[in-house]
Amino acid sequence: MRIRLFDTTLRDGEQTPGVSLSPSQKVAIARKLDELGVDVIEAGFPIISTGEAEAVRLIAGEGLNSEVCALARSNKKDIDAVCDANLSYVHTFIATSDIHLEHKLRMSREEALTRATEAVTYAKSRGLHVEFSAEDATRTDREFLQKVFGEVAGAGADRIDIPDTVGYATPSYISDITRDAIQASGLPVSVHCHNDFGLAVANSLAGIEAGATCAHVTINGIGERAGNASLEELSMALKCLQHDVQYETGIKSEMIYETSRFVSSIIGITVQPNKAIVGDNAFGHESGIHTHGILNNPLTYEPIGPELVGRKRWLKVGKHAGMHGTRAILAEYGIHPTDEQLSHILSRVKEMGDMGNMVTEVELISIANDVMGDDNIKDLVKLDGFSVSTGIGTMPYAFVRLNINGKKYSGTDFGVGPVDAAFNAIQKITDATSELVIKDYGLASISGGSQALCEVTVRVADTSGQSISSKTVGKDIVTTSVRAVISGANRLMLKKMMTQER
Amino acid sequence: MRIRLFDTTLRDGEQTPGVSLSPSQKVAIARKLDELGVDVIEAGFPIISTGEAEAVRLIAGEGLNSEVCALARSNKKDIDAVCDANLSYVHTFIATSDIHLEHKLRMSREEALTRATEAVTYAKSRGLHVEFSAEDATRTDREFLQKVFGEVAGAGADRIDIPDTVGYATPSYISDITRDAIQASGLPVSVHCHNDFGLAVANSLAGIEAGATCAHVTINGIGERAGNASLEELSMALKCLQHDVQYETGIKSEMIYETSRFVSSIIGITVQPNKAIVGDNAFGHESGIHTHGILNNPLTYEPIGPELVGRKRWLKVGKHAGMHGTRAILAEYGIHPTDEQLSHILSRVKEMGDMGNMVTEVELISIANDVMGDDNIKDLVKLDGFSVSTGIGTMPYAFVRLNINGKKYSGTDFGVGPVDAAFNAIQKITDATSELVIKDYGLASISGGSQALCEVTVRVADTSGQSISSKTVGKDIVTTSVRAVISGANRLMLKKMMTQER
Repeated sequence: MRIRLFDTTLRDGEQTPGVSLSPSQKVAIARKLDELGVDVIEAGFPIISTGEAEAVRLIAGEGLNSEVCALARSNKKDIDAVCDANLSYVHTFIATSDIHLEHKLRMSREEALTRATEAVTYAKSRGLHVEFSAEDATRTDREFLQKVFGEVAGAGADRIDIPDTVGYATPSYISDITRDAIQASGLPVSVHCHNDFGLAVANSLAGIEAGATCAHVTINGIGERAGNASLEELSMALKCLQHDVQYETGIKSEMIYETSRFVSSIIGITVQPNKAIVGDNAFGHESGIHTHGILNNPLTYEPIGPELVGRKRWLKVGKHAGMHGTRAILAEYGIHPTDEQLSHILSRVKEMGDMGNMVTEVELISIANDVMGDDNIKDLVKLDGFSVSTGIGTMPYAFVRLNINGKKYSGTDFGVGPVDAAFNAIQKITDATSELVIKDYGLASISGGSQALCEVTVRVADTSGQSISSKTVGKDIVTTSVRAVISGANRLMLKKMMTQER
Repeated sequence: MRIRLFDTTLRDGEQTPGVSLSPSQKVAIARKLDELGVDVIEAGFPIISTGEAEAVRLIAGEGLNSEVCALARSNKKDIDAVCDANLSYVHTFIATSDIHLEHKLRMSREEALTRATEAVTYAKSRGLHVEFSAEDATRTDREFLQKVFGEVAGAGADRIDIPDTVGYATPSYISDITRDAIQASGLPVSVHCHNDFGLAVANSLAGIEAGATCAHVTINGIGERAGNASLEELSMALKCLQHDVQYETGIKSEMIYETSRFVSSIIGITVQPNKAIVGDNAFGHESGIHTHGILNNPLTYEPIGPELVGRKRWLKVGKHAGMHGTRAILAEYGIHPTDEQLSHILSRVKEMGDMGNMVTEVELISIANDVMGDDNIKDLVKLDGFSVSTGIGTMPYAFVRLNINGKKYSGTDFGVGPVDAAFNAIQKITDATSELVIKDYGLASISGGSQALCEVTVRVADTSGQSISSKTVGKDIVTTSVRAVISGANRLMLKKMMTQER
């Protein structure tokens, strides 16, 4: 069965506190969503500001394959704003729960019902395709909700949506009221689930299993408070898990990861490492038992292949590591220890882990080097010295001295900040030697005061386009960043050298 | 009904790639989990390393109220390691799915079954309380799984656990096999759900509704790949949502947030802002409709009060803001615009939002100042100048010049990094004037290259203990951090002054 995905990243997602997108940013995201294959893009809430109305109008004019709609309260002014933005599809709503009627709208059930049907009638008279939401449906009196859905259907609504506004529903309750809504309205029904108790995806699935043909979702599950059902989780759950019915969506699943990254970088809401499908760790493995399984057959410890969502798997060593995973990672560098050597290497790795240290691949190779007595393996790029300054009334500038394969280089440069200045100085040196390029830079999780640790991730590429990511942890954000680049450069050049030689 | 929560933050959670805890860190987390009220702490997997075994032994010796157990594969060596760590409770497992048997264990179903019963018999002979897991249960042949559970029960197991090892199950399948397991074993049954499709909490609930009396959980939902069912989501879903049966756990819910922060800071895995219950935004509101509702009655847009999990709600202004929220925030500073002034202020706020800018409270007050022509409101602390340097072979040091209430101050200091040095220099100045103290420092989401934006959050307190958080966004991480402190200082002193005056 074909399930329609209604993406509200640009509306409910943008209502995430602290998120503000310019019209051009909204258009860029709409294009990406269209490419990904969502059925509907909810472009915004035009009445709230001039810029928002402009953004919606621009998206409407993009000629996308996805349908474009916008939000309106149940009044003429809001609906007119949707028409003025050149849309032909409105998502209009009014709250129906007693708590919202009494404390927010200060109106009776009957008044709300009249407003709802009048709004639908008006929207239809303006030629719009109308999706009607009964806000806070899951805390609305069940009989009254059925009445509302019946009457708005009578007034000409084309679609009904059930919002679980505060994420309060359980899957069984969503099933019940989805069946009610279908029966009362005879219309296609959507579910709009929030994640306040971590149930948004399960509730959306429950609605679909009960007959809803559409779900409202957002990229990375962003949205008010704990956010909405996440597109990547729901679309993959529909595609890959076992259901009584076979479900299909229009999503090009191999674009899921890049879309997640794209939206995260524009919107500035980070994705936690342990987020399903799109988190850094979703296809990463460290423990010995897991890497052993993965190396024999990835399906042992992965529900789906990472390629399906446009990703790659990775392995790591650490205190949970086993023989198989460590051997596999060393083999990538052309290093093949004997069983005895491997067990020495592994016990050194575990010692580091027991002290609470992460073991990077460079450290693993350096341990292998020690154990195997192979001094062909050494740091190719050494950081001989560096200094950086910034402040007010001065441009951030940096001086870096590197030793590459025994030759000394130095460079200075400025930048938008001290880290950028140091990177630019390194790039100046490496441009000259044509060895590496700095691609991405990421910074994670400093917490607990200004002396806490920060973790820097850098992707470094060589001129052939081969790239490698490198993580470094330290207290000084600037020197930690520079060390991450140096470490990435080493791993890249080492990998190249080792695989050529052996 | 009393549901048992089996916390595996220190075992499955620590298997998160890149996470390595030292024994003392593991003990600190175990103490916190005990205080929170989990029923069981899975302390680790003693066979994997000396440090791990030591950590488990230390936790066992802490005299906690929570039961303490540890993991063992189905063999004598692993089980002995659990005994050697002075535990009386083992969680032992063997894979039972064909994919694991064929590709990982390379053994037949019968061999696996024999290993399982032998391990249980051996563990019982060593006097242990035994919880048995059939790894990858949800992809195991359903009849074989029943057989395994029946036979390990016959061999003396005390508890059965159903692991959804790759997060592949749907709620309905978990219900089915939970009922199978109870019937086959006659023992108390646990569910251990992974979150690969965002269903871990829903699957745990489904298991409990089908008769499981225990769920395996982790703080912040950390764990292999996309992680495990999160303790905070499941415990609050059990407590607050409507179920046919009333569920209780031992969790002191008001400690949930501090436990989440504690674990996140030690383990170094960030929590995304839109994470349920414990994410930054879970009780934050910006949009006009939502803040309006919240101000009338928080239950309109919050499923539970934030106090229940040890948190506070917050409001923010931005392009989605409405009159009510903006008025409420200004009132906090003793600023009471007329309706006409408020609508001018709001349109200026929305203009900033439309340009893609976040509006901080300082900016809101400065806009209010402009609109209301009230020049009593001004920056009390001004950053007149500053410079900072760091590098290799030098201590990071900083020079700061501040203007506080018209008086000029300057200070220099060093630190572990340039940000810390600048903070120390500011603190030296403000210690002298006794005005403010810097409490927390946080840094979020730099992505997309070294020129990307970073967001700095600082909590600044005055000597009376009143504190305020301040966020600043910029490209130079060091100057952005210093500006955040200055901005926090201003907001704090402003708030104090305004509320005293009016």
